[in-house]
Amino acid sequence: MIPTITAFERSPDDGKGLSRDTRVRWALEEVGQPYDVRLVSFTALKQPAHRALQPFGQIPTYEDGDLALFETGSIVLHIAETHPGLLPADPNARARAITWMFAAVSTIEPPILDLVTVRIHERNESWAAQRLPLVEARIHDRLRDLSAYLGDSDWLDGAFSIGDLMMVHVLQRLKPSGLLNGYANLAAYVARAEARPAYQRAFEAQLAVARAA
Amino acid sequence: MIPTITAFERSPDDGKGLSRDTRVRWALEEVGQPYDVRLVSFTALKQPAHRALQPFGQIPTYEDGDLALFETGSIVLHIAETHPGLLPADPNARARAITWMFAAVSTIEPPILDLVTVRIHERNESWAAQRLPLVEARIHDRLRDLSAYLGDSDWLDGAFSIGDLMMVHVLQRLKPSGLLNGYANLAAYVARAEARPAYQRAFEAQLAVARAA
Repeated sequence: MIPTITAFERSPDDGKGLSRDTRVRWALEEVGQPYDVRLVSFTALKQPAHRALQPFGQIPTYEDGDLALFETGSIVLHIAETHPGLLPADPNARARAITWMFAAVSTIEPPILDLVTVRIHERNESWAAQRLPLVEARIHDRLRDLSAYLGDSDWLDGAFSIGDLMMVHVLQRLKPSGLLNGYANLAAYVARAEARPAYQRAFEAQLAVARAA
Repeated sequence: MIPTITAFERSPDDGKGLSRDTRVRWALEEVGQPYDVRLVSFTALKQPAHRALQPFGQIPTYEDGDLALFETGSIVLHIAETHPGLLPADPNARARAITWMFAAVSTIEPPILDLVTVRIHERNESWAAQRLPLVEARIHDRLRDLSAYLGDSDWLDGAFSIGDLMMVHVLQRLKPSGLLNGYANLAAYVARAEARPAYQRAFEAQLAVARAA
């Protein structure tokens, strides 16, 4: 039996890999775990059958036997805990890798998603243009700190871990904005992660769905 | 040896318990683990000594021997993994409790923090009043789903866990806004958690710091 994840039937990003199923695909590829994908339409997302798996009507979900999970942080952590390769064996290093997962989704991602709010959800509001620099400044605050911390290290804390996987996927959303360009080490960090064969396989898999849609 | 956490020397909320050290104090109280607190001034937060522990210049941090962590999700999870009482023994239930921790900080908290953005950081901007209902609508979307999921259960998934601890602390920030009032089961859920002796001790401990400041 192999796990089943859900993904958008039609990805809003047309296969750029920003939908959150990519994080789960990537983790599964890193550990060599085959998986099935069930595609979900925007209508089905909000129906009771999907909400029983994901109370907020989002993707991805993860089902493996009688276990059903949502939230990419939780799914990726579960994959890392049940397969070798994405968490260090040393307990302290393991706890620090988990710290970086939470930093990715709780400290770095929210200001980055606010860029989506201003550029997409509120793009027709009268304040959109004036508010954009405030939102960008909050992102720069985080990027400056993250860049200073990373320095010339390859990864956030020793070997590549689920902390890097989550952080890179969060940072990828900035690529079209050009905001990463001022941080050479962060841009190189993202590129280094994208060069991993497991990432390439995950990216191609989600792109194949977008092309078939 | 007992762990040391950091907290604001002067809490911006004057002891209402919304600063994030309260989450960590609460988890430590739930498992009966004594702890030390090192208070940090706003100036010291941004200095190299603190940034070596917390790259984004925030509180709380957690130090225990040669382990140093930040991010409340990571700290609370570490406490729960090293002490009985906050995570179910069953592996699937444990994974679901962790799912709710990520849902708290990644799905529920960001729109709630946007209320702080509009009411405090951007309160003098010309768009503040017009933007408020949009921000509130996004919070209601999440509260509606969370309320529907919780139903008449006491806690999110079986017994009280770190998933509830994190979710309740995230929801508490809504109390002054009145936004929780439309969701009787969520308001009761928060009150049920606040009645726990461990929460009361954590709240009193952070309040004592605010009173002494």
